Amino acid sequence: MKLSYSDIYPGLTLTSEGYPVKQEEVIAFASQWDPQPFHIDPVAARSSLFGKLAACGMHTQCIRGILQHRMPQQLDINAGLGAESVTLPKPVYPGDVLTLTVRVVDMRASASQPQRGIVRVEQIMRNQNREVVLQQVAVVMMPIPTPSELEEIDHA
Amino acid sequence: MKLSYSDIYPGLTLTSEGYPVKQEEVIAFASQWDPQPFHIDPVAARSSLFGKLAACGMHTQCIRGILQHRMPQQLDINAGLGAESVTLPKPVYPGDVLTLTVRVVDMRASASQPQRGIVRVEQIMRNQNREVVLQQVAVVMMPIPTPSELEEIDHA
Repeated sequence: MKLSYSDIYPGLTLTSEGYPVKQEEVIAFASQWDPQPFHIDPVAARSSLFGKLAACGMHTQCIRGILQHRMPQQLDINAGLGAESVTLPKPVYPGDVLTLTVRVVDMRASASQPQRGIVRVEQIMRNQNREVVLQQVAVVMMPIPTPSELEEIDHA
Repeated sequence: MKLSYSDIYPGLTLTSEGYPVKQEEVIAFASQWDPQPFHIDPVAARSSLFGKLAACGMHTQCIRGILQHRMPQQLDINAGLGAESVTLPKPVYPGDVLTLTVRVVDMRASASQPQRGIVRVEQIMRNQNREVVLQQVAVVMMPIPTPSELEEIDHA
């Protein structure tokens, strides 16, 4: 179910299902987008900073994306504008199970386009040990329903 | 060629080759990680905010990643720590050709681990019209060669 701008409020918090990270997927993803030894070669990864194969940061972001999409309730986003203070405090390893929490930080209508809402959303993804593997504040655009659209929703 | 911490300096700027964005790739990527109509369905995308099929933001980030990897000279990064102020000012569309510029902003040795350099890198990706499609300051870790390692490099 998609939540519209008029359904949400600062503090609203949504949580995802778990995402099991598979080694084959880690290697396949990084082979295409970030082919560094510590992302694609389990043996070479042992002498890396990580000590073992680790997912690349873009893969971690993609897992965040698909977990958000699979949430039973999700924000009706019509464009992503960027993010503030992205941190990857812990690596993601094959075998991890990741869970995402999304929290509405604040929201406002665009000054120039009042039918567009600008919403700041904190996204925190943790592994099975509750360690944070990704934390960021995303800035997204959500359509603001007009009064007549809201009436339609009420009568649906 | 990988540039080590001792090879780089604030202001160092590196530029990539071009990356042609293909519609099939846009659809395949988003189908896996961000399956929204405006990323995967050219017809539905016409009535979206974008007006046509647009790449998802994670795909844009991945193109940034592989362009960085393909640069003739690249930073010897051993971990990504995150990013500051990520913005996606313009959508990426099939048919675009993207180019990345990477600039070293500042660099310092980690206070707790002097063999690890913390480097802030501005990454700007533009389309064929020189419009910025992605801008961020990434925070990465680079190994700092020891004096004996530097001597080896000198004599190599």
